[in-house]
Amino acid sequence: MNTQPARGMRDILPMDARRRGYVVSIIKDVYERYGFEPLETPAIENIETLTGKYGEEAGGLVFKILKRGAEGKASGVADLALRYDLTVPLARVVAEYKDRLPKFFKRFQIQPVYRAERPGRGRFREFYQCDVDAIGSTSPLVEAEILTAACECYARLGFKDFFIKLNHRGVLMALLDAAKVASELHSDALTAIDKLDKIGREGVMSEMSGRGIKDESARRLLELLDALAHTGSEDVKSFNRIALERLVEFIGDNDAGAQGVENLRRILELCESAGIGERIKVDASLARGLSYYTGAIMEASVPDLTSSIGGGGRYDNLIGMFSKEQIPACGFSIGLERILLVMTEREMFPAEVERGSSAQVMVAIWNDESAGESLRLASELRNEGLRVEVYPNADKLGKQFKYAASREVNFVVVIGDEERATGEVAVKDLRVGEQIRVKRESVAEEIKTRLRNVG
Amino acid sequence: MNTQPARGMRDILPMDARRRGYVVSIIKDVYERYGFEPLETPAIENIETLTGKYGEEAGGLVFKILKRGAEGKASGVADLALRYDLTVPLARVVAEYKDRLPKFFKRFQIQPVYRAERPGRGRFREFYQCDVDAIGSTSPLVEAEILTAACECYARLGFKDFFIKLNHRGVLMALLDAAKVASELHSDALTAIDKLDKIGREGVMSEMSGRGIKDESARRLLELLDALAHTGSEDVKSFNRIALERLVEFIGDNDAGAQGVENLRRILELCESAGIGERIKVDASLARGLSYYTGAIMEASVPDLTSSIGGGGRYDNLIGMFSKEQIPACGFSIGLERILLVMTEREMFPAEVERGSSAQVMVAIWNDESAGESLRLASELRNEGLRVEVYPNADKLGKQFKYAASREVNFVVVIGDEERATGEVAVKDLRVGEQIRVKRESVAEEIKTRLRNVG
Repeated sequence: MNTQPARGMRDILPMDARRRGYVVSIIKDVYERYGFEPLETPAIENIETLTGKYGEEAGGLVFKILKRGAEGKASGVADLALRYDLTVPLARVVAEYKDRLPKFFKRFQIQPVYRAERPGRGRFREFYQCDVDAIGSTSPLVEAEILTAACECYARLGFKDFFIKLNHRGVLMALLDAAKVASELHSDALTAIDKLDKIGREGVMSEMSGRGIKDESARRLLELLDALAHTGSEDVKSFNRIALERLVEFIGDNDAGAQGVENLRRILELCESAGIGERIKVDASLARGLSYYTGAIMEASVPDLTSSIGGGGRYDNLIGMFSKEQIPACGFSIGLERILLVMTEREMFPAEVERGSSAQVMVAIWNDESAGESLRLASELRNEGLRVEVYPNADKLGKQFKYAASREVNFVVVIGDEERATGEVAVKDLRVGEQIRVKRESVAEEIKTRLRNVG
Repeated sequence: MNTQPARGMRDILPMDARRRGYVVSIIKDVYERYGFEPLETPAIENIETLTGKYGEEAGGLVFKILKRGAEGKASGVADLALRYDLTVPLARVVAEYKDRLPKFFKRFQIQPVYRAERPGRGRFREFYQCDVDAIGSTSPLVEAEILTAACECYARLGFKDFFIKLNHRGVLMALLDAAKVASELHSDALTAIDKLDKIGREGVMSEMSGRGIKDESARRLLELLDALAHTGSEDVKSFNRIALERLVEFIGDNDAGAQGVENLRRILELCESAGIGERIKVDASLARGLSYYTGAIMEASVPDLTSSIGGGGRYDNLIGMFSKEQIPACGFSIGLERILLVMTEREMFPAEVERGSSAQVMVAIWNDESAGESLRLASELRNEGLRVEVYPNADKLGKQFKYAASREVNFVVVIGDEERATGEVAVKDLRVGEQIRVKRESVAEEIKTRLRNVG
């Protein structure tokens, strides 16, 4: 019998589950402080809900569910599918419950998504997304708040070297126009530019050529991007100022482009006020894969990882695909798996999370007759807030101590015949091998004191 | 465009999501205090992992996933499936990682499961289970600890009238023998008995008759069960004592049955020690649906709900279906959806959970020029631990106040031109309509004091 998880799936054993729980609880706390409300949507969606929302490539990666009963078996028809991201389900939810949701609906959602991708390092077929989205306003305050919340998540998790690239779909289109890339090839050009980090200038040149973009346009575009990436300033604030000035110059009288630049300028100004100015860097070559973005786009990185640790943007037309009414929206998604990868490699978790066990105390079993007494003691310690494991069998005490040590549980308590006679409990501190006797009513306090002293 | 969730699926909007979060956080806290470790398994399993584990009826309710690519499309073959419960995946995990897991592996797992059932009131196709299981020991201490943990969950959630029925598969089989039900009809008899609560004595008689059980045996069995249910004692402790005495009498020299009764006696004794004696009631007619149970079985109820709010039991042979080694196990699953149903109907949630919004303060926007100042103020308040929403647009103040009121956010702060000049902030308390001016550095404290005063 094969006992491995299915291809691209993972079993999250306790140590990793604790790490995930730690990261998720911080992200959740930050999002709640920013006034985002929790939302959950089903893993299973009607297949039509997902069709035609992600673009051609992504659409092929949706997991499809066979129709139930004899009909499905015979026809092989799939009528349901697993959610591919949390944004399209949100758009459906906003369209469906518009009247019951606040006008400026701000939600966070932390749930797994499913993609039938070829599995690889850090790439799985089931993975968590941690999304925040703000619905109902086109104000740049929305982008600034979402960026500030994301920065606070990364900072609270312990990242010191992250930054967020900022760009705008309108600005990108204007740059493509300025380089005379034909409109019908715009999305091809974006796909090529998106790879600049990975395949370099030459790689992008040949990719664009392969996609039918004239060499002259490709060269011009890369010149513009190069000039925007090298402003001659190390200081983020002046880097951004010069990049915006050059954008104005390159884009000229392209209206949508000029509005895009103005939008970026305003977002940066608000980020400055919110105290995250140093974290945001204009990057004209940031393209983002998904087709539904319409305005500002953003992507978070750390220096030692080429792939991003989060990203998002404004998508003012997606909800309209589900509803007669066009409702503006902007969101950001933190990539939990990448965060966990980096934090594990850099050993960024607190010692408490990294212990072999969550339990702080183990109650040993002296003999079968007194097992009930052990359970009673365990209840008393739990009522004092301690996390307590009870050894299940009346094995030899040495074996029980050894088991506690193997689980990294540092305190074992025993009520032997003598202790019972005197109303005491034996407390063994496995770190130092010391064993003392404590009055039963002071056991919890004794252990808590010792826990505090070692952290 | 259809924007409803798929059949039997639900969108969990913020109010319900907060309620779920509240219940889950309490259950998680209790389980951790009992030394259970977190585990997560994938929603998608290889189809063979699930096949033949649940019995005939349940097996037909598994959601199947179409094979990817052209092959799946053409053949309609399903190679993957969605998990049906959390127990079978756990058995697979124990078999796969045995060497990396502690000998007495205790895990909790709170994840959704998927069943293609006909949807109905409180019955969905995606729903959460909150499971605890203890692997590796046949000791009755395990049952006692699992029952104690479950009782503490219910009590902490505010239930005062719950109780847990306790029975034993070995005892049931012995009773069937005593009533001379043919062995090959035992599982039919169990299915019929399981419905006693719902369809009554006459219903069970005719169901058994329909399943080929002799009327004489059926009548005898119901007599035995009746005698076990009516001990003439209101007091739980003596009820259980009399029930066990009668079981010994009815079962006679059936070895497995006698061991089952002794096991129940010991579990009850340990539960007594752990302080939950009053909650546990021997119920010889408790059968439980799933086929994998081998020892003690249990089911939690409240008086006003016929269906259970949790259940579990010992399953010593399931892990052996995945591994050469037979490893004993016992578990309990709290039904989150039923709990939520009852708690919502009985209004058992704290006021904090039931508010229209999680945010405690809204920062208003005085005008576009000062929007950055509003973001700065929001950051300051969040750093003081407050949950803060920022209004996104420079609308008229009255409109902003109205919006805050509609969201049940009771405090709105504004920095107008005058306040900015004096380093102050206007704080509007919407509950009383009062507006005061406070020094900027004391705003957070002022709001916190007012929040404390109203709870």
